[in-house]
Amino acid sequence: MAWNTNLRGRLPITCLILQVIMVVLFGVFVRYDIQADAHWWLEKKRKNISSDVENEFYYRYPSFQDVHAMVFVGFGFLMTFLQRYGFSAVGFNFLLAAFGIQWALLMQGWFHYFEEGHIVLSVENIIQADFCVASSCVAFGAVLGKVSPMQLLIMTFFQVTLFAVNEFILLNLIEAKDAGGSMTIHTFGAYFGLTVTWILYRKNLEQSKQRQSSVYHSDLFAMIGTLFLWIYWPSFNSASSFHGDAQHRAALNTYLSLAASVLTTVAVSSIIHKKGKLDMVHIQNATLAGGVGVGTAAEMMLTPYGALIVGFFCGIFSTLGFAYLSPFLESRLRIQDTCGIHNLHGIPGIIGGIVGAVTAAYSSPDVYGEPGIVHSFGFGGYKSDWTKRMQGKSQIFGLLLSLAMALVGGIIVGFILKLPVWGQAADENCFEDSVYWEVHEEVNAVYIPENLVHKHSTLASTMPVVLSTASTSIIPPVPPTPPVSLVTPVPSAALVH
Amino acid sequence: MAWNTNLRGRLPITCLILQVIMVVLFGVFVRYDIQADAHWWLEKKRKNISSDVENEFYYRYPSFQDVHAMVFVGFGFLMTFLQRYGFSAVGFNFLLAAFGIQWALLMQGWFHYFEEGHIVLSVENIIQADFCVASSCVAFGAVLGKVSPMQLLIMTFFQVTLFAVNEFILLNLIEAKDAGGSMTIHTFGAYFGLTVTWILYRKNLEQSKQRQSSVYHSDLFAMIGTLFLWIYWPSFNSASSFHGDAQHRAALNTYLSLAASVLTTVAVSSIIHKKGKLDMVHIQNATLAGGVGVGTAAEMMLTPYGALIVGFFCGIFSTLGFAYLSPFLESRLRIQDTCGIHNLHGIPGIIGGIVGAVTAAYSSPDVYGEPGIVHSFGFGGYKSDWTKRMQGKSQIFGLLLSLAMALVGGIIVGFILKLPVWGQAADENCFEDSVYWEVHEEVNAVYIPENLVHKHSTLASTMPVVLSTASTSIIPPVPPTPPVSLVTPVPSAALVH
Amino acid sequence: MAWNTNLRGRLPITCLILQVIMVVLFGVFVRYDIQADAHWWLEKKRKNISSDVENEFYYRYPSFQDVHAMVFVGFGFLMTFLQRYGFSAVGFNFLLAAFGIQWALLMQGWFHYFEEGHIVLSVENIIQADFCVASSCVAFGAVLGKVSPMQLLIMTFFQVTLFAVNEFILLNLIEAKDAGGSMTIHTFGAYFGLTVTWILYRKNLEQSKQRQSSVYHSDLFAMIGTLFLWIYWPSFNSASSFHGDAQHRAALNTYLSLAASVLTTVAVSSIIHKKGKLDMVHIQNATLAGGVGVGTAAEMMLTPYGALIVGFFCGIFSTLGFAYLSPFLESRLRIQDTCGIHNLHGIPGIIGGIVGAVTAAYSSPDVYGEPGIVHSFGFGGYKSDWTKRMQGKSQIFGLLLSLAMALVGGIIVGFILKLPVWGQAADENCFEDSVYWEVHEEVNAVYIPENLVHKHSTLASTMPVVLSTASTSIIPPVPPTPPVSLVTPVPSAALVH
Repeated sequence: MAWNTNLRGRLPITCLILQVIMVVLFGVFVRYDIQADAHWWLEKKRKNISSDVENEFYYRYPSFQDVHAMVFVGFGFLMTFLQRYGFSAVGFNFLLAAFGIQWALLMQGWFHYFEEGHIVLSVENIIQADFCVASSCVAFGAVLGKVSPMQLLIMTFFQVTLFAVNEFILLNLIEAKDAGGSMTIHTFGAYFGLTVTWILYRKNLEQSKQRQSSVYHSDLFAMIGTLFLWIYWPSFNSASSFHGDAQHRAALNTYLSLAASVLTTVAVSSIIHKKGKLDMVHIQNATLAGGVGVGTAAEMMLTPYGALIVGFFCGIFSTLGFAYLSPFLESRLRIQDTCGIHNLHGIPGIIGGIVGAVTAAYSSPDVYGEPGIVHSFGFGGYKSDWTKRMQGKSQIFGLLLSLAMALVGGIIVGFILKLPVWGQAADENCFEDSVYWEVHEEVNAVYIPENLVHKHSTLASTMPVVLSTASTSIIPPVPPTPPVSLVTPVPSAALVH
Repeated sequence: MAWNTNLRGRLPITCLILQVIMVVLFGVFVRYDIQADAHWWLEKKRKNISSDVENEFYYRYPSFQDVHAMVFVGFGFLMTFLQRYGFSAVGFNFLLAAFGIQWALLMQGWFHYFEEGHIVLSVENIIQADFCVASSCVAFGAVLGKVSPMQLLIMTFFQVTLFAVNEFILLNLIEAKDAGGSMTIHTFGAYFGLTVTWILYRKNLEQSKQRQSSVYHSDLFAMIGTLFLWIYWPSFNSASSFHGDAQHRAALNTYLSLAASVLTTVAVSSIIHKKGKLDMVHIQNATLAGGVGVGTAAEMMLTPYGALIVGFFCGIFSTLGFAYLSPFLESRLRIQDTCGIHNLHGIPGIIGGIVGAVTAAYSSPDVYGEPGIVHSFGFGGYKSDWTKRMQGKSQIFGLLLSLAMALVGGIIVGFILKLPVWGQAADENCFEDSVYWEVHEEVNAVYIPENLVHKHSTLASTMPVVLSTASTSIIPPVPPTPPVSLVTPVPSAALVH
Repeated sequence: MAWNTNLRGRLPITCLILQVIMVVLFGVFVRYDIQADAHWWLEKKRKNISSDVENEFYYRYPSFQDVHAMVFVGFGFLMTFLQRYGFSAVGFNFLLAAFGIQWALLMQGWFHYFEEGHIVLSVENIIQADFCVASSCVAFGAVLGKVSPMQLLIMTFFQVTLFAVNEFILLNLIEAKDAGGSMTIHTFGAYFGLTVTWILYRKNLEQSKQRQSSVYHSDLFAMIGTLFLWIYWPSFNSASSFHGDAQHRAALNTYLSLAASVLTTVAVSSIIHKKGKLDMVHIQNATLAGGVGVGTAAEMMLTPYGALIVGFFCGIFSTLGFAYLSPFLESRLRIQDTCGIHNLHGIPGIIGGIVGAVTAAYSSPDVYGEPGIVHSFGFGGYKSDWTKRMQGKSQIFGLLLSLAMALVGGIIVGFILKLPVWGQAADENCFEDSVYWEVHEEVNAVYIPENLVHKHSTLASTMPVVLSTASTSIIPPVPPTPPVSLVTPVPSAALVH
């Protein structure tokens, strides 16, 4: 398993080729939407738009910025919880997302924004591209620490492609609704990532176990990610909803669902610990499950208490998943899910899909008003004979489709990534930044004040003792046993003779 | 004082019961406001609203997101300055705020948004709920490190209740104005928290003193909180103001006041240190005092230089408070104020209330225009015979009311929290995460490169020395004296015989 | 070079005097713009403005908040990468920016917002003030670790003054366009800072070299800065553009350019390392170069692929600059550029100026529409006979002007800062927080669990060994050689006799 992890030749070539392809395809295909084009001036006149504020930019841009923060800061820092993998967590997430958004603009553009031979680009597209990439960030969580940046770029390329196909079928052919992406983003992203990590199973991964945990400060860095995801999730679920009440309602529902998740996560985290202590892993992750679970139904008339109930159960199931399901998946099904995305995105994503289907199926003109229900679900035109039951069914088909695409796609991509050419690390070098990053090995002087030495040791020299410790671990990693203890056993022979 | 800190039974039950109550009450009482309801479509028609952009969502949502970031990221990280209490600071703040916003939506809803038997929910309510919870986050600062999450939930429950009552009397009965909450949020929150911590006085707290300070990295984490509070404070003070000029002006005034605070904080921090050095505690906190001090008057015609003057003095008084008043309060009045909220929220809150009263009392039609002054202070209707002097008086009554509510409420809640059933930690275990959190004790290998060992020690073995150190402290805490030094005194007897 | 670094007298006086001057000048000059004044009510009536949403606040405030986050959180944390200079990086950035925005409001106000004897203040001014201060934050990067807060305040005072003059000539006299400030902010800021650091050359700076590098956690703190700069840069470049399509387009172009920078930065970072490893310095900085490079042209019809191409090359040149140019500048030209601002702001700023000129020169009515091109470049009125070529030339003059102002201004300010009265640190004490900050020296107990000691050392005592290490380095710094190793050589004489 000792593949060559030197990416000097491969990674630069891959990045440059991908980026050149992006430039060429953008040159051929992508143009500004009329709302971002200098001709908007004419459009305004033609359509008799009274004010610049009607430019879509002002409806969507604040939400876009929140989503953008979630993808790059939120997901990036959430994955810094590992003690020696912070650079990779935040850096590789940065890399894959920066590539993914470009490819997503093209893929989604061809499917959804293609007008007269060109993809037209506006603030809507970049929200959708960030959404698409969020599913790659989710999948990254499953393989975190075990794949090379090359593999992540390849995975992102395929995943974005599959995402766009799945999304097109789900939204445009099956006509399901999925504002917050419970199905297209979370369910698809999670099961895709889990399938990939299942194919990439590493049977000697326990050789890296000592690095597969957090340290005190890394858990605080991860909380930065958690909190930015949590506070901006209402923007995530509402960013692409219809103007007005739908966007408004989606934000409110998400706000409530997330709040409920926090309390139930704390409750379950405490109850499953023998001394009632909380676990940072649960707080960092399961508190977000309410946002995932309410994704599809957020813009629907879920009712405020409905949103609370969704968050209530998502927090519980997600925390239980971390405690009981993840160990089972790893030991029995050989699914090594580093971040526990099955618990944060998989289960709550499925719940979200089902909640969406039920909400749609039980939506009624009493609640929405007759034009309201037509407007909300796009009934009308060729969809004029649709009923709410049909909408509910279509939601379920969307969910099953997302699962199927994730599994099939994940298997194929998994086998591609299994090829021993991508510079992946050996089992004993997983979860370690220094495989792919220049980590400064300079000595971090730990200064021991003179007086302390004086007081307690007559043997110590009178000058301050400097404990020179490398601030970083190195590869080959520290031999786990037997470590030589702080006080090196002094061979008595060496002393007395 | 060695109470049982195992919360396994109590915390989960409390969380679950509270959350179930929330679900039930939301089910009975809370509905979407028409602007977030699928019927908005009809409302738009009926009221002849020309554009979706007139939905309150677009006026308020960006400000809401900033406020949300302040409550969860800002307050959460600001309190991570303690060396061993980062998990609790950010985690318990998360918990209490997530519960508090739900309860605040109900309490404030009954008082302010009750229409035809239901509380109507829109973006306004969630801004107000975040405001309300901000006062709980303030109070948490006083008791940080000394209370259990159970106590925090109980405290939040009562504080939110009292907040809503106080706010209702202040805004609706006394008819005071308080856009940025100098009185309702900061003064009330601070003196409530201080009263609680006074009742909860721990006379042996010095046994935990060694953990009641920062380390290098924890101070940087706290600066994340400071800066997010600082940059978003203009949104905080303007989020609930009237549309247009009032919201605009509130943001500008706050921006200016905060800038002035920074300079005077630096000045005073340097002048009171014998070597002129700056203290991170001051920079983390007193720089924010300008935002508190300008809270009430931010939306009034305070003038730009007026805002600077408020910030100028708030920075000075706040920093002096940290240096001289806090030690006095602790030693003489037995008020153990962990974060110094008296200096950041107490004093500047009172200043803010007074500034608001003076600004209101000296407001004139010359400045506001006749309709402007009526619009700004809501004169008109039954308030048509009000004068600006009466408004000034009403502001002062509001301030006194907030203080009175805080003191009385704080005493009652303090005694409730004093009951020995909430799982509070012993005096010697305060400021320590591992009481309530699973803190990984796994060994953090500090690797000592071979060559270093070779060079300086002829006794060391030739293999790298691994200094195995737990990355976390544990309970019972490390005995402060006499620590066994790095080089354990070697009993010579053991060696020579 | 051992100047007195005790700022107790000087820093407070400077801060207080500057702040008092600000208050007085604001009192004399600054008033609310009509959109932030209580009279807006009348203005709305007079101008027949139908809705509050037409208040400039709603067009600009969300972008302002993003820019504000970039200046205080982004630049502040980006500079925390040094192991022992995090307090100063984030704290001094806070101080200089808080002063700078006030002075910028005045300077820019006199030039651009002066009406009837007063500067009128609205959300536009505070965006511009933040822009202006961003150039000071850039310059701070060059001198980071080597100057006192006194020097930074003086530098900011002069730099803001020069910025405003340069900007006025560039925008109003030369009539160049510079929405995202490639020239006025980045080129000017970078070369100003580089000139200052060139004048302040420290020939014995290698005495502080051991602190002029990062440690693991400091690199993660710096990534907070990087990511907040990166995600909000689209707001930065679009914040001051015309309403509607220009603002929309500026955001899109910047989004694309930044994405391309990330891939080319990773490519070059890997290719120049002998083992193909990535360097955090490149990822932290060069990934942002696309935002700088697209600054001037962002609001123009650059085309989406044009934006990608700009980002593509900016990422490459910036990374190469870090690898090859910075060492050259330091060794040959005596330019000690701590953060490598030449690579992040200097080169990409010049590229941005040129791209802007070319884009303007090749703009055509085919692309913009006839009224579009007039609207975009302000042709019309006395500028009615301008051609696009003239606009291109004017852009180049603007770039040259910015460079000239930076060099001349930097030399003058550099010599002022060279005076030995500002409390600068000695060469051996650079990059060290404890010169200006109270850094807690309390002992950070590293606990070594009992069982570990038992297992591996028969000599150790049975009580836990506490390795007391100061959590901070101190001054005088740790003697670099020869450090006494962990295992102090035990004089055998002391044991056997």
